[in-house]
Amino acid sequence: MSFNTFGQMFRFTTWGESHGPAIGVVVDGCPPGIPISAELIQRDLERRKPGQSRFTTQRREEDLVNILSGVFEDEADGLLKTTGTPISLLIENTDQRSKDYSEIKDKFRPGHADFTYQQKYGIRDYKGSGRASARETAARVAAGAIARQVLAGVTIRASLVQIGPHKIDYANFDWAQTSENPFFCADATAAAQWETYLDGIRKDGNSVGAIIEVVAEGVPAGWGAPIYGKLSADLASAMMSINAVKGVEIGEGMASAMLTGTENADEMRSGNNGPRFKSNHAGGILGGISNGDPIVVRFAVKPTSSILTPRETVTIHNEDTEIITKGRHDPCVGIRAVPIGEAMMACVLADHFLRHRGQTGRDGGVGF
Amino acid sequence: MSFNTFGQMFRFTTWGESHGPAIGVVVDGCPPGIPISAELIQRDLERRKPGQSRFTTQRREEDLVNILSGVFEDEADGLLKTTGTPISLLIENTDQRSKDYSEIKDKFRPGHADFTYQQKYGIRDYKGSGRASARETAARVAAGAIARQVLAGVTIRASLVQIGPHKIDYANFDWAQTSENPFFCADATAAAQWETYLDGIRKDGNSVGAIIEVVAEGVPAGWGAPIYGKLSADLASAMMSINAVKGVEIGEGMASAMLTGTENADEMRSGNNGPRFKSNHAGGILGGISNGDPIVVRFAVKPTSSILTPRETVTIHNEDTEIITKGRHDPCVGIRAVPIGEAMMACVLADHFLRHRGQTGRDGGVGF
Amino acid sequence: MSFNTFGQMFRFTTWGESHGPAIGVVVDGCPPGIPISAELIQRDLERRKPGQSRFTTQRREEDLVNILSGVFEDEADGLLKTTGTPISLLIENTDQRSKDYSEIKDKFRPGHADFTYQQKYGIRDYKGSGRASARETAARVAAGAIARQVLAGVTIRASLVQIGPHKIDYANFDWAQTSENPFFCADATAAAQWETYLDGIRKDGNSVGAIIEVVAEGVPAGWGAPIYGKLSADLASAMMSINAVKGVEIGEGMASAMLTGTENADEMRSGNNGPRFKSNHAGGILGGISNGDPIVVRFAVKPTSSILTPRETVTIHNEDTEIITKGRHDPCVGIRAVPIGEAMMACVLADHFLRHRGQTGRDGGVGF
Amino acid sequence: MSFNTFGQMFRFTTWGESHGPAIGVVVDGCPPGIPISAELIQRDLERRKPGQSRFTTQRREEDLVNILSGVFEDEADGLLKTTGTPISLLIENTDQRSKDYSEIKDKFRPGHADFTYQQKYGIRDYKGSGRASARETAARVAAGAIARQVLAGVTIRASLVQIGPHKIDYANFDWAQTSENPFFCADATAAAQWETYLDGIRKDGNSVGAIIEVVAEGVPAGWGAPIYGKLSADLASAMMSINAVKGVEIGEGMASAMLTGTENADEMRSGNNGPRFKSNHAGGILGGISNGDPIVVRFAVKPTSSILTPRETVTIHNEDTEIITKGRHDPCVGIRAVPIGEAMMACVLADHFLRHRGQTGRDGGVGF
Repeated sequence: MSFNTFGQMFRFTTWGESHGPAIGVVVDGCPPGIPISAELIQRDLERRKPGQSRFTTQRREEDLVNILSGVFEDEADGLLKTTGTPISLLIENTDQRSKDYSEIKDKFRPGHADFTYQQKYGIRDYKGSGRASARETAARVAAGAIARQVLAGVTIRASLVQIGPHKIDYANFDWAQTSENPFFCADATAAAQWETYLDGIRKDGNSVGAIIEVVAEGVPAGWGAPIYGKLSADLASAMMSINAVKGVEIGEGMASAMLTGTENADEMRSGNNGPRFKSNHAGGILGGISNGDPIVVRFAVKPTSSILTPRETVTIHNEDTEIITKGRHDPCVGIRAVPIGEAMMACVLADHFLRHRGQTGRDGGVGF
Repeated sequence: MSFNTFGQMFRFTTWGESHGPAIGVVVDGCPPGIPISAELIQRDLERRKPGQSRFTTQRREEDLVNILSGVFEDEADGLLKTTGTPISLLIENTDQRSKDYSEIKDKFRPGHADFTYQQKYGIRDYKGSGRASARETAARVAAGAIARQVLAGVTIRASLVQIGPHKIDYANFDWAQTSENPFFCADATAAAQWETYLDGIRKDGNSVGAIIEVVAEGVPAGWGAPIYGKLSADLASAMMSINAVKGVEIGEGMASAMLTGTENADEMRSGNNGPRFKSNHAGGILGGISNGDPIVVRFAVKPTSSILTPRETVTIHNEDTEIITKGRHDPCVGIRAVPIGEAMMACVLADHFLRHRGQTGRDGGVGF
Repeated sequence: MSFNTFGQMFRFTTWGESHGPAIGVVVDGCPPGIPISAELIQRDLERRKPGQSRFTTQRREEDLVNILSGVFEDEADGLLKTTGTPISLLIENTDQRSKDYSEIKDKFRPGHADFTYQQKYGIRDYKGSGRASARETAARVAAGAIARQVLAGVTIRASLVQIGPHKIDYANFDWAQTSENPFFCADATAAAQWETYLDGIRKDGNSVGAIIEVVAEGVPAGWGAPIYGKLSADLASAMMSINAVKGVEIGEGMASAMLTGTENADEMRSGNNGPRFKSNHAGGILGGISNGDPIVVRFAVKPTSSILTPRETVTIHNEDTEIITKGRHDPCVGIRAVPIGEAMMACVLADHFLRHRGQTGRDGGVGF
Repeated sequence: MSFNTFGQMFRFTTWGESHGPAIGVVVDGCPPGIPISAELIQRDLERRKPGQSRFTTQRREEDLVNILSGVFEDEADGLLKTTGTPISLLIENTDQRSKDYSEIKDKFRPGHADFTYQQKYGIRDYKGSGRASARETAARVAAGAIARQVLAGVTIRASLVQIGPHKIDYANFDWAQTSENPFFCADATAAAQWETYLDGIRKDGNSVGAIIEVVAEGVPAGWGAPIYGKLSADLASAMMSINAVKGVEIGEGMASAMLTGTENADEMRSGNNGPRFKSNHAGGILGGISNGDPIVVRFAVKPTSSILTPRETVTIHNEDTEIITKGRHDPCVGIRAVPIGEAMMACVLADHFLRHRGQTGRDGGVGF
């Protein structure tokens, strides 16, 4: 039963609310002998951390990860390695300012999960959105850092490719740029323009949506499975489970509808290491199984629901009112979703790697 | 482990290849006492069946469903009802023409799963695409017919809303039209224009993609779950698992990226039966949980890969060649995906209904 | 959610009632390229089949298995092999005599699941015990035959070791004898005595319980997993899920309570292929993981509940009455449980083999 | 995939090694609105805690539980209640004396999981048995305390009923006695005799096995499920997953083998609230479903493997040697298994309660 657990062989369970003492994740099923360290996990956490620029929330969470179990020092090389048992990671919540919650306690914030949590459970942790807080995604990033270590030979990177109506120009695409601007954007020109645009949004007390593209290179043909275990289905579930995500695409995505069969066919040619594809409309997945080409996934994040513009809403007693969601919020939560998308890609791939190896006894395809 | 099983409490497992003796599905976890019948399942199967118009493949499968287990006649009313035990449904394959498979046996068809199945398993049932055949979706439709019966009070309908570059006009939207044209299209005007367009595609030996919109009305607030059990995540997985699907959207979907927070917020007003939303950008789901509004999902189906235009490919011995995929294929597989999308929506909702009831003891939200 | 599904990577789902048209099983997650055939499955089914001697029910089921999916002829050697996709097996019910069910329709049979199915579901297929019929176990045996093929190098055998108060003498233990008497008993002397004993039980219209011992040889060290995925825990679940089973033991089993630490320790000595154990009190499992020694499991089957001696019971309207369960029943259902125990052992081991391979990338232990 | 997770709807995941910084458990799927508190969980933990008498290990663990997530103060009554989201419980390890591990690092302890963990994973946390430590069971007891709260109306109690060859006399059975002696034994006379017996075992540097009986009263008819989701199968798995357990029985258990059908039948009589059973050979479960009678489970715990008597073993380099396992060990780990057995019973029942409610919409049976 998947409530707070993701994955089947490489699986993780997250827990914690943004305003409780800590959040955390338990990773189970990880192969033994994989080198991991707090530093390595921390590196990924830093990228997701709030307060990195004026375009993300000014909350200050240290996000220091503690490894509580599942590792042991390998005396042969002195490295901390996984033992094959559950890896428990804990991140303390350090920025829980005492504040006045009376407004969000009594009013439903439009676009938030306040109303639906109340309806579902009849009880609601209204502090900092409780379990629905984006803070939960730190736990995913930590799990993803471990998944990356499992995936030797696979490179997973992501870029913001659209913010509001402004798309990147793929002619400018350069992965190296993603660490050079506050948007994790592979197009330096677009990133520069976005600064002005997003400053305007922020000053208006408004917010805006975004699209993230995640690419995994080095995945061998053969990972994934029919029919309900399709790599594409698990990626769709993974990305759609991220807060505020409303759409997921593989390869051509929604634009597939506009293509003809002749345009969309990825023709094949013989290569030195077996067949290669002349194009990648498929986004690296055919019939739910990786084809050896880069796996390309995009997902759309809706604009932050917490805005400074007053919105009509109702109280928990069903009375009409208005609400302004004050606080330190991201004008575009899509920015911080970039490392989260990478983490979810890593977790899905690590899971399918182990599942494929279990069923077939091979790490990848049969080869040529 | 989800390979060929979907769902958690209401769960089904499909089996069978298009050119074997039969295909089928086992539905497990269905509540007891639900009236079902072969006729009722047949009605949904008829809508998916090939050969209904010149726009779908001319293969002729009778698609007659047999209920092999899990039902018993209720003496109180003479109706066949579920007993709570597994319901096994079997559909014989009747149109297995003896034909020459030598071409697809030796060549990988671009856009098909031939190459990836071969790489993954090292052995491949090349007849009629084996397990990757769209025929598997008949099993989903059968399971969906049972799920609908579980969902008393919920109405699930779908419409083709785009074919190639041609979108419907939502001003013309009328559910009644979906049974009046060969496209399950709610816009009669668009449907009329599509006939001409698709005739051209078909005569060119080409194919084209499409977008389907599925809407569920009558779902109470409270179904779904954080975080990895989000209703949206399961719907994304469900739709992405359908053959040829490359994108899934909830509510505003990918277009969320272009909206600002003020535009996207679904404001709330008090109503007689509790709060109501003034708009439905969310597509009926907030924080992964239904909010009482219609659930709106769209998915894109790529153009049929089997086309009569020659495409470059390689042989299973990694030699360059060309292929024309002859046979009786759909110029737009998206058309037949309409009832399949409805079925998957029904299965996801039935599953979440039971999961919600299990955890909370209620059928829906706490109410006002 | 495990209702009618067993296993995680090698998993099967059974369906069907004894008096419906058929029963069956879908095996999912099986590795590709495994040779299987109807003959091979049939061989195991023959051993479970009723009517083999006067000590098992005289019902005559042909138990002919049909393979409906998941296999393909390997052109290299002409053998039918698994393709890695779901294997659907169907067995028709051929001996459904029209008979008078009014008695079991209206009265609860003591020791049967009649009362509990009625209470749980509110509707009950009373014909031939419906889903609770021992006929379901034919599906397990069929799945087990496939699991055996997955387990190259592992030998799984079982023997009846106790019937009523009469135990075998392990000094006489000879696997070859299990095919020489109607009890699958490895002690020829005991088997001869049991004939007289069981004839008496049968003529009295009574029944008796039994204990079965299942042994798997050739399992490498390393299969199984902490903590809730222990090999022992899964074997306990597997055996306890067989109809009428009330106890399961690994190695010394319940008698462990009577041993001291010095007696129970399986001491170790160095061997040519790594450490070996001087005894096997552990039954081949330490900490839930196989240690390379034979896996030894025993389970107790209660006496057949259907007996010709009248028993007090109540009607479905809660009125006192008596019942004699006529029909063609086994005086000792434990006999036919022997091949079922083997099948469940095979399925658990195949599952853990694949799970171990998935997580560690190895088929067995790290070795010495 | 169950490695360190137990249960389906009410499910928990444990993590942590005995000599790491902490151990813990995440409980997911718990219904909302259930009152829990650290005190309540602590009460159960105290019963399992080592050092309670001279018959349990003299290690001193404070076992103080911290609730890190999943609860919220209900303003209506000031009680801390579950919110329906994951409940994370953490227990720090406080008694990690620095000690010399060189012996257990280099030698495999007979009866321990040292050898099998090494073989499976190729890396082993040898400090305090790592993950295989009985300390993990504290996490189960904590989860069980929450499960009890979910099970309003159900009483779960356990008693040690055998230690070595010494059984209790059921004529003396009195639940009240279980809190009056260091053995959780319902027979005061037996408990007194056991003191002398176990003192002898302890002074000999030896250990001994035991049998625990767990009884759940107040479970309505209808919980559990065919076929692989049998209540009995899940209980068998639950108990067999506890460290050192080698046998599990329901009702008559292994002794069922010795009974005849006339003896074993639990006859029925009409009662004011529907049928009642005249005896409970079945242990409250028929066909895997509860029948309304007390659920009776017994399990055998092998003698502690860590003993002061030297035993033959091998080094990790496959060289013959001897080992004495020094340290503060229980002469009979069965004693502390009593509250653990109760906890596992509670978790299985809470899980099946929710599963039954999900599928049928009822809390118990249909009634009369």
